[in-house]
Amino acid sequence: MPPHVILAINAGSSSVKVSVFTYTTPTADPTEIAVIEVAGLTAPPATLKYSRGDQHIKGQELPDVDSQESAYEYILNHLTSDEGLQELKHPDDIEFACHRVVHGGDYDKPTRIDRDTYHHLEALSDLAPLHNAGALTIVKAVHEKCPKATNVAFFDNAFHQTLPLAARTYAIDPKIAQHNKLRKYGFHGLSYAFITRAVASHLQKPAEKLNIIALHLGSGCSACCIQGGKSIGTSMGLTPLAGLPGATRSGDVDPSLIFHFTHDAGKPSAKSAKGMHITQAEQILNKESGWKALTGTTDFGVISGKAAEQGADGLYKLAFDIMVDRISDFVGSYYVKLGGEVDALVFAGGIGEKGAQLRQAVVGKVSCLGFALDEAANDKPADGVVVEIGKQGAKHRVLVCQTDEQSEMARECAQGADGLRRPAQS
Amino acid sequence: MPPHVILAINAGSSSVKVSVFTYTTPTADPTEIAVIEVAGLTAPPATLKYSRGDQHIKGQELPDVDSQESAYEYILNHLTSDEGLQELKHPDDIEFACHRVVHGGDYDKPTRIDRDTYHHLEALSDLAPLHNAGALTIVKAVHEKCPKATNVAFFDNAFHQTLPLAARTYAIDPKIAQHNKLRKYGFHGLSYAFITRAVASHLQKPAEKLNIIALHLGSGCSACCIQGGKSIGTSMGLTPLAGLPGATRSGDVDPSLIFHFTHDAGKPSAKSAKGMHITQAEQILNKESGWKALTGTTDFGVISGKAAEQGADGLYKLAFDIMVDRISDFVGSYYVKLGGEVDALVFAGGIGEKGAQLRQAVVGKVSCLGFALDEAANDKPADGVVVEIGKQGAKHRVLVCQTDEQSEMARECAQGADGLRRPAQS
Repeated sequence: MPPHVILAINAGSSSVKVSVFTYTTPTADPTEIAVIEVAGLTAPPATLKYSRGDQHIKGQELPDVDSQESAYEYILNHLTSDEGLQELKHPDDIEFACHRVVHGGDYDKPTRIDRDTYHHLEALSDLAPLHNAGALTIVKAVHEKCPKATNVAFFDNAFHQTLPLAARTYAIDPKIAQHNKLRKYGFHGLSYAFITRAVASHLQKPAEKLNIIALHLGSGCSACCIQGGKSIGTSMGLTPLAGLPGATRSGDVDPSLIFHFTHDAGKPSAKSAKGMHITQAEQILNKESGWKALTGTTDFGVISGKAAEQGADGLYKLAFDIMVDRISDFVGSYYVKLGGEVDALVFAGGIGEKGAQLRQAVVGKVSCLGFALDEAANDKPADGVVVEIGKQGAKHRVLVCQTDEQSEMARECAQGADGLRRPAQS
Repeated sequence: MPPHVILAINAGSSSVKVSVFTYTTPTADPTEIAVIEVAGLTAPPATLKYSRGDQHIKGQELPDVDSQESAYEYILNHLTSDEGLQELKHPDDIEFACHRVVHGGDYDKPTRIDRDTYHHLEALSDLAPLHNAGALTIVKAVHEKCPKATNVAFFDNAFHQTLPLAARTYAIDPKIAQHNKLRKYGFHGLSYAFITRAVASHLQKPAEKLNIIALHLGSGCSACCIQGGKSIGTSMGLTPLAGLPGATRSGDVDPSLIFHFTHDAGKPSAKSAKGMHITQAEQILNKESGWKALTGTTDFGVISGKAAEQGADGLYKLAFDIMVDRISDFVGSYYVKLGGEVDALVFAGGIGEKGAQLRQAVVGKVSCLGFALDEAANDKPADGVVVEIGKQGAKHRVLVCQTDEQSEMARECAQGADGLRRPAQS
């Protein structure tokens, strides 16, 4: 029997990324055999990035690819016609297609997508119109092009279903909150699940006994307080907008701010489409704010570099300082939630992995709690999924974790494969 | 020469409170000689509370008083016709009328209200339509009834003008932020100024060296991080809505939540009036949320009492736990901002003063930072403006402060009297 093939698919608003895994048994970790990404869908021409074994393609333009559907079609053709990818010669070779769905409402585990669940997910998208649409489009494309594959939704909020009631409840009318499903959900859950497992393994501790403060810092940023391996606090809220600022996201602002920003806050945005109602407020605060609005660039590496050269009143410096300020606030809050029993402060995500300056500034701010860096290790972290950058002898560890949402999906999929397969047709 | 009379006036949406002070020299603390309050303006009949020396009136109904104007007229008549109040026999005896103005924009000190400043304040009210209107109405009433009195505005955000740039800047388009004056302002500043002075005096420390985490917990709640006597962080934002929940205020929610609460979020509320534009969002989040929405009562004492009897899923318990959770979050954040150099955690405001259970729960949560209570002192704090309730030998002190915004205004007014008087008519 040939190995089973899993596609782990992450569809953003402007890109589609697919990692190809094979697995043999539910308990063995799946093996990643190729990664392909089509980016720039909203800034054509789209470009291809591909790596399989020794073969690497980067930046190849794809003039005919202009939508998520055509991106998936391209990806599927590319994979099945790669002679070096013996495991995937035909769409029917794909057993599972794993989809990262940002907002899963009350779903608390990976769920096979059939007609009913698809409609549930569509209805949920009203809570996160900017975030779920990409995944749903790809689910449809897989259904058409790979009819034998089982589609499974992985929810980015599922990890936070353990949030205590007080942490997830807003101080608003509880009847309307219940009816409209208004509560803190939290996101980046696939990443936090990966981090929890990887850090527990690194520390040789059972995950159920792991207490960490984890920071997923990428173009979207969040913080998570993990006690006994479970999320007990997280910075994102009803949607990914709340909490820390991001590349184009404001993060927390006064809830009445948007009405002073524009009188048209509640009107539909020009981006509303395909039955998705997006207010101007959501468009502005999710897509036209954050450090891009402050500095003009989405690249936090550029901001860190220029901040170091700039005086106190420069905008790069300000954007950098805002991130340090808001992140340190969450570290302080989460330290208290853990009663000071903290195994490690963990940096993850693109900025968490590469941002030595940001890590230095944050750890400096929270040094009174017992965190300290080994400057050399912070400047050039060693290779590895989880790496120590804390000072020897400090009260608490500081770690960098190369989080990987794709492999988290593949692993959970392989583990739960028996329960996720479609029942045999009778 | 008779002593100078100062009225310190605090006009809320449904009440007008006036404290009568006399002062002799700028450096001596003014003496409070009477306090009068008309409450229930939005839930008639209005009622009177009055105390002067041994005389106390409480709950007397005032059927003819139905507006802030008529409340002020009643108050003035009551004061000038009280035989025991020799210092105030005629409106002309009032030298200064001090007004607590919630939102003062960039004003950073008490300011005499003349035609120009009045118009500035009216324009600012667009930032805080729910909060400034009461004070402006009373300013007009004083101008008509007491033409010789000098009106002085005291701004509840002025204390927070020292917020560092990163703390007061939102991650939004900086051009629109500047044009529309969108930044964190912070409020309860008169209270925090009082607390800073009173705690410094209690600790026999110069205010410029005082580091405290102060909590003003009343029907509106906020937290403030004070370093060297200056505000470096506070929980309220552009308006008093941000940060901690209050009696009818949601506090922080996902900035996109309101659009999922009602599709009419941006439409004018029925409460819009007198040229004030109030959105439904502002009305709902400021006036129809908070622990009243969760439990049905605005009385936090009732909530604390019932929470203690209730199981984990009761709404009183939930409202109580939400407050403890959110307050502890800020204590953790502010501990980090102070680098652990904290002279005291200070509870103030009606709930801060009376809420032994809340104090116990909060201090319990933050005990890992070195705070601990003396249970007996917490259950029955001693008399005094600043009282110790912390455990002897704990790393950091815990205090209760009877904050007094009226006396803070009177004191600042007497101190600055020479600069605040109207120039002599030439």
